[in-house]
Amino acid sequence: MTQDQITGVAIVGCGTVGGAAATILTRDAELVSKRCGTRIDLRYIVDVDFTCAEQLGMDASLFCEDLDEVLNDDSVQIVAELVGGTTIAKTIIEKALNAGKHVVTANKALLAHHGAELWALARSNNVCIAFEGSCAGGVPIVGALCQGLLANRIDAIFGIVNGTCNYILSEMTTRGQSYSEALTQAQADGLAEADPTLDVAGIDSAHKIAILAALAFGRKIDFDAIPASGIDSLDTMEIRFGQELGYVVKLLAIAQRQGDGLSLRVRPAFISKEHPLAWVSGPFNAVSVYGHATGHTMYYGRGAGGLPTASAVVADITAIALGTAQRQSEMIGIWPDQAPEANQLAIEAVRGRYYLRVMADDRPGVLARVADILAEYDISICSVLQHESPHADAGVPVVITTYEATEGDVLSALRKIDALDVIKSKTTCMGIVDEHEEWLQPA
Amino acid sequence: MTQDQITGVAIVGCGTVGGAAATILTRDAELVSKRCGTRIDLRYIVDVDFTCAEQLGMDASLFCEDLDEVLNDDSVQIVAELVGGTTIAKTIIEKALNAGKHVVTANKALLAHHGAELWALARSNNVCIAFEGSCAGGVPIVGALCQGLLANRIDAIFGIVNGTCNYILSEMTTRGQSYSEALTQAQADGLAEADPTLDVAGIDSAHKIAILAALAFGRKIDFDAIPASGIDSLDTMEIRFGQELGYVVKLLAIAQRQGDGLSLRVRPAFISKEHPLAWVSGPFNAVSVYGHATGHTMYYGRGAGGLPTASAVVADITAIALGTAQRQSEMIGIWPDQAPEANQLAIEAVRGRYYLRVMADDRPGVLARVADILAEYDISICSVLQHESPHADAGVPVVITTYEATEGDVLSALRKIDALDVIKSKTTCMGIVDEHEEWLQPA
Repeated sequence: MTQDQITGVAIVGCGTVGGAAATILTRDAELVSKRCGTRIDLRYIVDVDFTCAEQLGMDASLFCEDLDEVLNDDSVQIVAELVGGTTIAKTIIEKALNAGKHVVTANKALLAHHGAELWALARSNNVCIAFEGSCAGGVPIVGALCQGLLANRIDAIFGIVNGTCNYILSEMTTRGQSYSEALTQAQADGLAEADPTLDVAGIDSAHKIAILAALAFGRKIDFDAIPASGIDSLDTMEIRFGQELGYVVKLLAIAQRQGDGLSLRVRPAFISKEHPLAWVSGPFNAVSVYGHATGHTMYYGRGAGGLPTASAVVADITAIALGTAQRQSEMIGIWPDQAPEANQLAIEAVRGRYYLRVMADDRPGVLARVADILAEYDISICSVLQHESPHADAGVPVVITTYEATEGDVLSALRKIDALDVIKSKTTCMGIVDEHEEWLQPA
Repeated sequence: MTQDQITGVAIVGCGTVGGAAATILTRDAELVSKRCGTRIDLRYIVDVDFTCAEQLGMDASLFCEDLDEVLNDDSVQIVAELVGGTTIAKTIIEKALNAGKHVVTANKALLAHHGAELWALARSNNVCIAFEGSCAGGVPIVGALCQGLLANRIDAIFGIVNGTCNYILSEMTTRGQSYSEALTQAQADGLAEADPTLDVAGIDSAHKIAILAALAFGRKIDFDAIPASGIDSLDTMEIRFGQELGYVVKLLAIAQRQGDGLSLRVRPAFISKEHPLAWVSGPFNAVSVYGHATGHTMYYGRGAGGLPTASAVVADITAIALGTAQRQSEMIGIWPDQAPEANQLAIEAVRGRYYLRVMADDRPGVLARVADILAEYDISICSVLQHESPHADAGVPVVITTYEATEGDVLSALRKIDALDVIKSKTTCMGIVDEHEEWLQPA
């Protein structure tokens, strides 16, 4: 495509993000064409229901219910799939790629599950898939990994990539609300879905770290092998003890090089309150990336919502209109369809520091028995915290932080600890994320 | 250039950044070529002294003292100017462009002063200039403005873009050191130059905001019209009063749309301790960008140093090797050589909130006289802070924060206030940066 050409776009799915993208492409058309240097024309809005599009004042002549009509139109070069989900959306993208259309999508679930397959299909059709909107909304983290950080061996990514969870955790931390109170509040504020499972159970975060890790490490990621837990069973006790120990609880999506392997996981974890990620509050997202040359860089912004995500979608459309997205897709060596499979470590092999909250009988010798079992597994205790407590019936919380150990050893020790007659309930175990060491030296 | 081609690079200037770039291109050559998908060969290291290159173990066959020899070599497509400064560096870049070489540079001073002219020269020679390393070191902020945020009307940029100043301010804030103590410490730690003027007087920050503002707003910036003040006359009293009022003092490089004009300025300013920029400590940089669709996004990382900056330099080299930098240079409509001139507002026209520290006699009626003069200029008082003080000889500090006013009115009022016989010394005046309002609506 050159300066004289017009790039034709079809938006499929006119919901929150699709509607916002259509708005930018029409109402802000002059701004976009001036800045990106080529004309981008919205040719179709494809949907089965145009209520949202009508409310946005979209020209009804754009409305089309027949995807095939759009795919047969040679004036359309780009199909933006903004339907979401992994069923119809997959069919739409496959049809678009097979029809020789470039695809722009914000669909993290689909790319996390079927990315490699869809990239291969794009390649075989000589078109590309652009997906900046799939991770962290309007924050150009995909661009950073595919371009700005390309000269780095990436060593680790730590992401707060789900705004709903971060909002709930912020409310729990600053207002002392319980999880369910904060969730109800988030739902009332429109920051959580009626069925919040995908968000609060960590699945959405896992989708995003699967995509980011594939690009960062140039590896094919098996989504189903990513252990994910969410914030839905988090007790405010952990938040309070964390504060006392100098930590903040965040739902972290982690991808970390460990030896020849790669550890991917999603979980609520403690992070030092000095780390920039600890400061990210409310519905904001942030992704910390550690490269061998850059050291720590972080990308922050709104991770969801119509306009922020649409900003990324339209940026992708302009990159295709300019031809730069195709060039990157064709050349750079980090795309999952051409990458070797990642050596994803089982959670038992992950090394890290841990926070354990044991609920124990208030009797002499309990701490000694717990410490003995930890020692048996070579787990060194870093700190112990036990307050004078009047509530002995449910047990007394004894908080132990450990030095680095493998999660397998920690879990084995906990099985043994929880079997002790002096332990009142299952021990809570959470990871502690220390500042990742910066190497700043040749790869 | 295609997959079969090799891109030849000459590094001119083998100091901290040049040496680190040469290291990445040689020792990490396999990593880089694998990730960027094309082979990049370092062909020459041009300098007059090869001590640094030798210490890095560079192959002496790369050493060359004759730039013309390099420019006549058709196997070199890219010249990376890493000499710095605005004299020899300018000649090197002009010669390289005229010889049909693409140029990569991290030279903020040169681009701030002569960017438009050099871009035009590049365009007339059908080559491009890439400069990710010129702003915020390894943080890909230039890429974000040229690609990821392209669908946005940018409304404001607030940057902490000088690591030396941020380190000094962090030390003054956390350790209560004076400016000169913290500077001495920074020099001992290798974080400040022997002659720190460019950094501490705000000039380096002004260079960077000139470059970023040109891209963000698509305007030609007159560097000489950017008012810049630094941290070299900052009193610890301001830091302490700031903390009391809920603010942190940062050296901010600001570019802000105001009506039809653009306000650019560099100065130590108060920013709410809730704002993400307030958390940026030590030698780190961060740039907050407010777009009409993304709202607030922020980019954080090491703003200086060999490897972080070299990461950006090599990313630029790969973008040229891939052809994407040329395409952006040719197409997108934000480059200063083709942009209209910015309507840069005089500092008097800037609207904002202000912090005033009046040193007054401890006598009845002083506050009334100060308040009267402010009222005369329509400046509303937002808060007043005066402590009981035993040190009446040098005057008692009375801190006043104002509601929004033009800087011109504030300065006029201060001239009148400082002429009062009850005022012991010149009033300190600093800007307060409130969270920029996010619009998140069509441009």
